[in-house]
Amino acid sequence: MEIMRVVDELVCTRRVPGLNLSSLRVLESLKGGLLVATDPVGVPAGKWVFTTSGSAARWAMPDVKTMTDLTICGIIDDWQE
Amino acid sequence: MEIMRVVDELVCTRRVPGLNLSSLRVLESLKGGLLVATDPVGVPAGKWVFTTSGSAARWAMPDVKTMTDLTICGIIDDWQE
Amino acid sequence: MEIMRVVDELVCTRRVPGLNLSSLRVLESLKGGLLVATDPVGVPAGKWVFTTSGSAARWAMPDVKTMTDLTICGIIDDWQE
Amino acid sequence: MEIMRVVDELVCTRRVPGLNLSSLRVLESLKGGLLVATDPVGVPAGKWVFTTSGSAARWAMPDVKTMTDLTICGIIDDWQE
Amino acid sequence: MEIMRVVDELVCTRRVPGLNLSSLRVLESLKGGLLVATDPVGVPAGKWVFTTSGSAARWAMPDVKTMTDLTICGIIDDWQE
Repeated sequence: MEIMRVVDELVCTRRVPGLNLSSLRVLESLKGGLLVATDPVGVPAGKWVFTTSGSAARWAMPDVKTMTDLTICGIIDDWQE
Repeated sequence: MEIMRVVDELVCTRRVPGLNLSSLRVLESLKGGLLVATDPVGVPAGKWVFTTSGSAARWAMPDVKTMTDLTICGIIDDWQE
Repeated sequence: MEIMRVVDELVCTRRVPGLNLSSLRVLESLKGGLLVATDPVGVPAGKWVFTTSGSAARWAMPDVKTMTDLTICGIIDDWQE
Repeated sequence: MEIMRVVDELVCTRRVPGLNLSSLRVLESLKGGLLVATDPVGVPAGKWVFTTSGSAARWAMPDVKTMTDLTICGIIDDWQE
Repeated sequence: MEIMRVVDELVCTRRVPGLNLSSLRVLESLKGGLLVATDPVGVPAGKWVFTTSGSAARWAMPDVKTMTDLTICGIIDDWQE
């Protein structure tokens, strides 16, 4: 799992059916890259989180059929960059 | 999921059977790499999209047996590079 | 599988249900990146370990439904960086 | 899916049973890395192709039990580097 | 699949149950990174091999439940770096 910081929400009106009900977040990785993740936890911008990728990202969602490859798993309590 | 920009269509007359009916797009990632994705949404060149990879890429297609590892999930409404 | 060093435990009070009972470790890869892994072995900080990723990470856990994409597989006996 | 160029065949007399009947090709990625792929299409050296990876690579083979993680999906008609 | 060179055996006395019977090798990739793979072929140090990753790595093992994400698939007959 990777450590990332929540940057923003992702606004996206036109998407595939399998993502309809999921909250999407823009995350920044420790290397500075930007990625999009589904968020079943509900995390505000600025927080440090860790994410799971691949098929595990689907299992971390309430609905396992969600078409995601990156999901926020939890908020890290104390993290200094 | 990754943020990418649609560059072009991919013209490919000789391919494996499992991709026969899918639209293919050439995408450019935020790091500048070029990739090929299946497109169930119908996105014109120049638009910013986000993509899902791995086994989730198949679940995002209308036919889950499509032999893809990268699928366009949605168009991002407002994105400045 | 990758070779990594255990840096610390990860403190995380708010997380998705599928990770409730797993120990989490912060690892440093040979390239210097920081990652989070589930730890079914019980490894103290400072030890060199090797990890498995992707769907194999779930199979390496006692409960195969654990929402992980990186799991510590074993402690390497003799390793000099 | 990634864009690659076919460099050569791979000669390999001793291999695991699951690869016995597959043609193997050495490919060069756009970043200059060398990879090995199974080839169900039949592509001569020098051609530009696109490849699928992960579990999709197995689904792109005639026999889905082939032990591959990278398969050539099609030949790109017009591609200038 | 990737091209790698066998560097050494991996000595590891404490590991998860799912790896108990597998031979482990330390490999060096073409980019110079070090990785750990399961070896169902039996390859001595110094040889060039190609490896399969992800879920295919499990299918390449005699026991498909082996907790690996990287498996040696075959020895390359002639390879100059």
